[in-house]
Amino acid sequence: MAKRQLLLLSSSQLHGYEFLEFASRDITDFLSKNKVSTVLFVPFAIKDHNAYLKKVEKPLNQWGFKVEGIHNQENPVDAVEKAEAIFIGGGNTFRLLKALYDTKLVTAIRTRVLEEGVPYMGASAGTNVATRSINTTNDMPIVYPPSFEALKLVPFNINPHYIDAEPNSKHKGETREDRIRQYLEEKDSCTVLGLREGALLHVEGYNAVLKGFTGAKLFVRDQEPVEMKIGEDVSYLFKDCA
Amino acid sequence: MAKRQLLLLSSSQLHGYEFLEFASRDITDFLSKNKVSTVLFVPFAIKDHNAYLKKVEKPLNQWGFKVEGIHNQENPVDAVEKAEAIFIGGGNTFRLLKALYDTKLVTAIRTRVLEEGVPYMGASAGTNVATRSINTTNDMPIVYPPSFEALKLVPFNINPHYIDAEPNSKHKGETREDRIRQYLEEKDSCTVLGLREGALLHVEGYNAVLKGFTGAKLFVRDQEPVEMKIGEDVSYLFKDCA
Repeated sequence: MAKRQLLLLSSSQLHGYEFLEFASRDITDFLSKNKVSTVLFVPFAIKDHNAYLKKVEKPLNQWGFKVEGIHNQENPVDAVEKAEAIFIGGGNTFRLLKALYDTKLVTAIRTRVLEEGVPYMGASAGTNVATRSINTTNDMPIVYPPSFEALKLVPFNINPHYIDAEPNSKHKGETREDRIRQYLEEKDSCTVLGLREGALLHVEGYNAVLKGFTGAKLFVRDQEPVEMKIGEDVSYLFKDCA
Repeated sequence: MAKRQLLLLSSSQLHGYEFLEFASRDITDFLSKNKVSTVLFVPFAIKDHNAYLKKVEKPLNQWGFKVEGIHNQENPVDAVEKAEAIFIGGGNTFRLLKALYDTKLVTAIRTRVLEEGVPYMGASAGTNVATRSINTTNDMPIVYPPSFEALKLVPFNINPHYIDAEPNSKHKGETREDRIRQYLEEKDSCTVLGLREGALLHVEGYNAVLKGFTGAKLFVRDQEPVEMKIGEDVSYLFKDCA
């Protein structure tokens, strides 16, 4: 896993920015540094794959990268085996993970990224599936995947689109923090990094740094949650859940 | 199913009311009409079963009903077979449904309610599990149940705690309506009744009426969502997904 290269975005959207724009510099640096010219895009979290591909192509082409949609390739496993970089976009995490299992991509992507160092980018659902499991997704369980275990590119969980409770809310549904705390009550759970929209995690081997604009909140079992700031080294997360 | 008696609450809490208080009259009428003196309470959606039992006992005792916790019974299936009425409380829907499968209660409750006419009350997660499936829960998937199929006391889906999009929100996560629309894109989906906090569905046999304070929004595949008002007869829902 010393070759691992990950860029895990909380979301594709940040208020006030175009699609992916808030992360343009991080994405460009990440792909350029790894000498990537073409990104293999996985649109399975959204129903209309072609429309999604077009949406992602627009900014990436503008920044000098070509994009291929995995749904247009004859054999998705072969496509992963040849990919220079993999980007899994957001949408519904359950639909996405089920599609990854159905197309035998879980093992293929894991091997390429962890053993062969192929750069992996994820946004929202694409970040959820990069972690230990999808146990901390915000999405509705619209389909039943064969497991909640995910790509395990990192051994901890991420909650994307993390949002603080609205102090004046009259809504009685659980807050995001309540929900993450419920997860931590379960015996198989581990640490959860709540990434606010606009935040991203950059991983190189066993080093992880929080980047972007907005920071994160870290939830460790039996401890009070801790605020994390942009620029913070969070490499110790690899020890927590190993 | 002609004997079916259900009271399905969107939530246990409504802003400005004590726990279950907003539905006190509906609950009292429902239980009295069915000559119930003791309610069998299923607290599996919350980790601390005894604390949850106490919380529920307080209002129900005050209104003249005894409450037994199923977690205190030697054999949960026997307890269901003897129950005068069943109440499944809210919490985490995944944890609840997994516990219902683990304790063999899915078939036991379904048989008692649909074939023997035992009154069933649910709130939030307890309403989710009463429907066709848990595909439209808002909860985090903190554990992996053996299926998303639920008690099927009604053939359609409910989204409890339904909430309209906040027009000025800067958050980019999907709205509740976006999430329900994603579900309706899936081939096995059916109609979803989005019950606002404070709303409840009263079912007698094949008759269903919307009660409570706040109304609901109905999502039918390939149609625009429709507002439903308190007092509306929604019995046609039984035909939609039969």
